[in-house]
Amino acid sequence: MALKKLGYPAHRVGFDAPTVLEQAIESGAVHEAAKDVEEAVRNSDLVILATPVGKILDLVPLVKSSAPSRALITDVGSTKQRIVERATATADGPLFLGGHPLAGKERSGFAHADADLFRNACYAIVPSSPADMEDERAKAFVRLVNLIGALPYVMDAAGHDLAVAYLSHMPQLLSTGLAGMVAEKSSQVNLPLELAGSGFRDLTRLAESPYSMWRDICLTNIENIQSALDAMIQKLDTIKAHLSTRELENEFSQARKLRERLHEKD
Amino acid sequence: MALKKLGYPAHRVGFDAPTVLEQAIESGAVHEAAKDVEEAVRNSDLVILATPVGKILDLVPLVKSSAPSRALITDVGSTKQRIVERATATADGPLFLGGHPLAGKERSGFAHADADLFRNACYAIVPSSPADMEDERAKAFVRLVNLIGALPYVMDAAGHDLAVAYLSHMPQLLSTGLAGMVAEKSSQVNLPLELAGSGFRDLTRLAESPYSMWRDICLTNIENIQSALDAMIQKLDTIKAHLSTRELENEFSQARKLRERLHEKD
Repeated sequence: MALKKLGYPAHRVGFDAPTVLEQAIESGAVHEAAKDVEEAVRNSDLVILATPVGKILDLVPLVKSSAPSRALITDVGSTKQRIVERATATADGPLFLGGHPLAGKERSGFAHADADLFRNACYAIVPSSPADMEDERAKAFVRLVNLIGALPYVMDAAGHDLAVAYLSHMPQLLSTGLAGMVAEKSSQVNLPLELAGSGFRDLTRLAESPYSMWRDICLTNIENIQSALDAMIQKLDTIKAHLSTRELENEFSQARKLRERLHEKD
Repeated sequence: MALKKLGYPAHRVGFDAPTVLEQAIESGAVHEAAKDVEEAVRNSDLVILATPVGKILDLVPLVKSSAPSRALITDVGSTKQRIVERATATADGPLFLGGHPLAGKERSGFAHADADLFRNACYAIVPSSPADMEDERAKAFVRLVNLIGALPYVMDAAGHDLAVAYLSHMPQLLSTGLAGMVAEKSSQVNLPLELAGSGFRDLTRLAESPYSMWRDICLTNIENIQSALDAMIQKLDTIKAHLSTRELENEFSQARKLRERLHEKD
């Protein structure tokens, strides 16, 4: 939809569940609906895999063997190490370049599709090896990412998965955990949700994200997420121990400094 | 400023630090600047204490002895048990009614004042005893709260402090904790903040809140906050243990149900 909005001259072929394909055709997101994956990718220059991570892992070998060898294959999965490994394992054929646009919504489905979703969003680009970025197809893909208004950020798979465990997966699990903890507590005592202000609403918004997506993310980045959860539990223990001491001021000041660094990136 | 915007016919007297008073006069938020607290409240029908909780605790006895006995005294502090106890301890004189508008901003100071802040916000009203709500002054205050667009919610101090520990103080400490944890981790390994998407930004927004306000909140609600932190730590332990099992689906589904209950309150 972003490419359509830009008037980018490409013939877009889609494959998905029949009802989704129908909406994609109607809206003009794709020009043509394929009857299966092989047909969809057979004549492609660029293949974009946009499913949960587990399905991407299944699709990579199939697409690598079905797409023409001139093609670039990329994905939009939230973890990269397992996917890039899988793509490297299937020798030669088209070039695979991992991708991860840091632009999610807590609502999924075609109804929430948005041509402006990628505007000003970081788009992690994760090659199997740095040399892949010299390939003309990789360079063209970076230009395309810029064209849709996103900000390309090239990095390796291990560094990506470590960073998103702390910056993306941890916020999700904290949000789910906070909403779940309050659900449990409110089944024991009276916690009038009328008192939930914008802070609670902001912090639990992500808790509406679909399990189907997060199951695969947790499975494919489990060590990093466990470490991040350990660090978070330790941090909450420290805060608990210092609720009535001046050490709490250091916690607030450390947190504010991180926010200042975030604002500098804006 | 909300009363000014409404054209509410009241003579508003303010007392604060000189630079703040100057801005309040210039903007028309108050008509008159008092030279001290006693002067500010001497002829008041309604006194609103809007300082951090510790300062409210100091002001309550002073204001109760300086304001006319016809007056209603209220506050906007984020915890209520200690404040309501303090007000009850100082016998007779004006009526004290605890207040807590659930409408915060992470930025403080006159520059962030907003006449529309209270619109559609829950406004907890916490009497020393239920009978106080029958007093004409309490009834008039509830009408005033409605007038500025807020939603009055009458409750007792213990119930209030328990609920806000989970619904307000916990989100704040999670936000501070997440930002602080990421600050620490990023001093050890490379965590490019370019990868921080809207989720991380939403979850750490509250981390900009001033320590000066939260110090007093933590001190005056410490037992409830400790229990909430324990519950949160336990929840994160459960999530960590179930990252690769179907139990994680239950966590997501419990959290989504809580969000549905929140939406029903909208």
